[in-house]
Order: sequence, then C-alpha cells, then structure tokens
Amino acid sequence: MDAKPLLQQYQHRVEQHLKTVLNQSGDAEKVRLAMQYSLFNGGKRVRPVLVYMANQLLDGNLADADAAACAIECIHSYSLVHDDLPAMDDDALRRGKPTCHIAFDEATAILAGDGLQSLAFQLLAADSALSSDIRLKMVQILARDSGYQGMVGGQSIDLCNEGQQISIEQLELMHRHKTGALINASIEMGALSSTHASDTDLQALLTYARAIGLAFQVKDDILDIESNTETLGKPQGSDLLHEKSTYPALLGMSGAKQKLANLNAQAHASIDCFNDAAAPLHWLADYIVERQY
Amino acid sequence: MDAKPLLQQYQHRVEQHLKTVLNQSGDAEKVRLAMQYSLFNGGKRVRPVLVYMANQLLDGNLADADAAACAIECIHSYSLVHDDLPAMDDDALRRGKPTCHIAFDEATAILAGDGLQSLAFQLLAADSALSSDIRLKMVQILARDSGYQGMVGGQSIDLCNEGQQISIEQLELMHRHKTGALINASIEMGALSSTHASDTDLQALLTYARAIGLAFQVKDDILDIESNTETLGKPQGSDLLHEKSTYPALLGMSGAKQKLANLNAQAHASIDCFNDAAAPLHWLADYIVERQY
Repeated sequence: MDAKPLLQQYQHRVEQHLKTVLNQSGDAEKVRLAMQYSLFNGGKRVRPVLVYMANQLLDGNLADADAAACAIECIHSYSLVHDDLPAMDDDALRRGKPTCHIAFDEATAILAGDGLQSLAFQLLAADSALSSDIRLKMVQILARDSGYQGMVGGQSIDLCNEGQQISIEQLELMHRHKTGALINASIEMGALSSTHASDTDLQALLTYARAIGLAFQVKDDILDIESNTETLGKPQGSDLLHEKSTYPALLGMSGAKQKLANLNAQAHASIDCFNDAAAPLHWLADYIVERQY
Repeated sequence: MDAKPLLQQYQHRVEQHLKTVLNQSGDAEKVRLAMQYSLFNGGKRVRPVLVYMANQLLDGNLADADAAACAIECIHSYSLVHDDLPAMDDDALRRGKPTCHIAFDEATAILAGDGLQSLAFQLLAADSALSSDIRLKMVQILARDSGYQGMVGGQSIDLCNEGQQISIEQLELMHRHKTGALINASIEMGALSSTHASDTDLQALLTYARAIGLAFQVKDDILDIESNTETLGKPQGSDLLHEKSTYPALLGMSGAKQKLANLNAQAHASIDCFNDAAAPLHWLADYIVERQY
C-alpha cells in the first residue's frame, strides 16, 4: 500500500485545524506571532498523523482526533523552540528557517514555548466532541508523557549525557523519554479518540509506538552523518559537534543500520494482529526508516 | 478577625501536599531536583491560600481543593523560574536564595519550568476526588489563565513595555495578565472545588480577585522603592534598573498609595454579600496591602 495520499490528507487536516487555534489577535501580539511562527515551521506532522492513523485503525471518527492531533503538535513545537535556545542546543536553523529565538528574541522564544504548552492542554480540555472522561485521560497522558517522567526528563538525561561515554542502554533510556514518550502519547490518544480501543489493541499499538519511536531516532542519527545540511534543513554533523552519543557512534554505522532494520521488523510484527486495517501504519514504519531528512 | 492561623494552616497544608508530588525519584534526577528546589523556595503560597479560602467560603471540602492548590503553585513556580532566566529578568536571587539557573544551570532551569507546567495539569487531571466535569473545567481555566491569553501574554506585554513610556491603562493591562490571571484562576478553581458556586458567587469572587491581584502588584511596586534588599529577599530597586514602568513612576508615590487604598476598598466591597463567612478574605485583602515583603 502507498499511504502517501493518506499521510498528506492527515497533514493537511491538522494544518487546517492548527490555523484556527491562534487566529484571534489578542493583547499579547508578539508572543502569539512567535507561537504561530513556531507552529508553522514546515514540520512533517508525524505525531498528528499517528493520532489520526490510530483513530482510523480502530474505526474512530477523524473529528474526534483533531484536538489530540493539534495538542500533540503544540507540545512537540514548544519542545523544539526550547531545545533550540542558546542554553540548550543553540541552533540558529530549523528546517532551513531561523529558529524562534533568532526570528524573535530569546525571551519571546521562552514565552512562546510556555504558551504552546498551555495551549495544548487548553485544546484537549475544550474539545466538546469527546466525553469528559476521555478528555481527562488525554490530559493525563499528554501531561505525563511530556513532563519530567517523559519528554522533559529525556531532554534532561540528554544534557547530562553530553560529553560522557554512555552505554547503549543509557542511550535508549534517553530516547525512550526524549522522543519515544510523545510518539506513545500520539498513539494512545489516537486510540482513545476512537472510543473502541481494547486493552489488547492498546498494548499492540504501544509496542508499535515504541519500535517506530526508537527507529525514528536511530534514523536521525544515521542521517546526521550521511545526509547534508541542505537536505536536512539543519547543520549536518551537529551531533558530533555537540559530542552527543549516537547509535552509529556506539554500534558503528552497520550496527546502527542493523538496529534500524530490527526495530522496523518489530514494528511490523506488533500490528500484524490488525490485518489489512493496519496497512497505513505498516507503510509509516517503512517511511520513517527510508526518509532522507 | 485575625486569619493568620488560618493562613498558616493552608500554607502548611499545601506544603505537605506539594511534598508528595515529586517524591518519587525517576530516570531524570537532575530536572526533578531542580523542580523540587523551585517549588520549595520559601514562597508565601498566596495562590493556594486563595484556592482554599474560596473553597471554604462556599462550604466546600478542603480535600477537594488540594489538587487545584498544588497545580496553581506549580504554574506560579514555573513562571518564576523562567522569569529569572538571563534572557528575561536575569535575577540571581529569589527570596534570598540562588535562583534555579544559578543553583543548577540555565538549560536545567528551562526544563524544570517546563516540567512544572506539565505537572500542574497532571495533578489536576489525576485528582479523583472531583468529578470529571469539574476537573476538566479546572484544566481549561488554568490553561487559559496561564497561557498567552493570560500570564504568558502578560510577561510578553511586560517585555514589550520595557524602556517605553506607557500609560496607566497599558500598565494595568499588563498586570491583569501577568499576575491577575493566576489570582483569578486561584479563586475560580477554589470556588469550583466547592461544587456549590452560583454564578453570582463567582462574579463577586472574581471582582474581589481582580482587585486584590492589582493591589498585590501596586504594593510590589511600592515595596521595590521603599523596602530594602534584605527584607525583600531580592535586589531592591530592580524595577528602576530594568526601566520598568511602575505605579509610583506613573502616579507618584502618594498616587500609588491612593490607588492601593482604592483597590483595597473595592476588594472589601465586592465580598460584603457573603457576610461573616468572608472574614478570611477580608483579612487577606488587608494582608496584601500591609505586607512588608
């Protein structure tokens, strides 16, 4: 199956919804513009796509997944804004465009990130399409997976690892928090939005989420070495520059590629139980492995 | 009425509850410790106290207000951590202790603030004492009042105002967002936690919240000039240093004191309808005006 048209449909869908969440001008125009700039920086919208795919796999209504799709992208977007700050990764470019603190200023970038985080929870809580119980569960999932037990924790582990010799287990722990947690949240919220998710469904989907989340990261590490700045839209070789531990550094390039293949196989196997309905998710697992940027 | 024992009881209560929210060590120890450091920096817990007082005024159970009390303090605490950063106010001292980015480092302070924000929503959503509907309403209130339409917006307006000649209306707009929004949220969540709040009750309480929120800020501006660094626990005269517009600067010191007295009178008048039950809130309005730090 070629799910590219589906991917584009979901990307377009979340794009349209995100356009409405910040379209009212208010009293604090500068931070609102910085939030908008950061939300529309050419991102691939992988997490919202996962939300929609999990929703559709379990016969949900797409409309019930819109709030979760927008919320997860707000969180992802805030994390990039803060990650790019001088005190963190100090990146001036993101997908070929100036990062938020370059386009605006550092203080505004800190606030824009903060505002995008609150906005995520506001969108989830306000979505009247879903029952209160489901919305609350989504708030719980998103808060846990984006906070110190999830993404924020992963970023902190990452900083502590910098310049250190770490083991493959420590690297994996970091990634499971830093990027894996939000991938999990995407899948879990998407499943919840269908209102048909059984525990077995959820477990299968979470195994899939863990595998593609890690595969995404292994691929990122490989691309940082094998791609070039123009294709990546960010400086090639920046992991090496920041003395970050990577899969190629710890396993060698061929070891990293073997790891990627294994994770891809795990992802496919975990969703075999859904038969043909999982075709888009199978396609996405391969897309993550084969992407060039 | 001397409500100081009540104030201390509520301060103690929220302190005990806050101690439990971060007591499990996890995989990201550094950011957790930075969050803990920032939550326990000797704050006066004014917002949690307001939550409890509004809850009690409307015959609520204190236990139903604990999550909201902790959540509002997490948000307040994260805002101070980010506010103190070099790119923002660049303060090294907060209540006489090193600020988070001095005690830890700048990147960890950014992440600790981010983690405290998620934690606030996690606490609200997980509080099984309240109905899903009420918890969701609280998430909505807190997200709106802490985000770009509330506190974060106010901080951005504040930054834009720096070094500018602004009017008293613009100063007030900034404060209504920057500090007023969280005071409102405290009162509104406290009232909701009682499950007995009528619309009339809520309107009266929100008028009170607006008055004391602004009074708090006018008093802060006065103290910044009339107090000293030791009493304040932060550098005296820092508003002048940062070229911030203040009430004394715009109205003169006697004008600012008159403004403070007017706001105090408004606060008292707004809650007359509750008769004796509002005695603690009357006391608190005076406490805000009379405090020395």
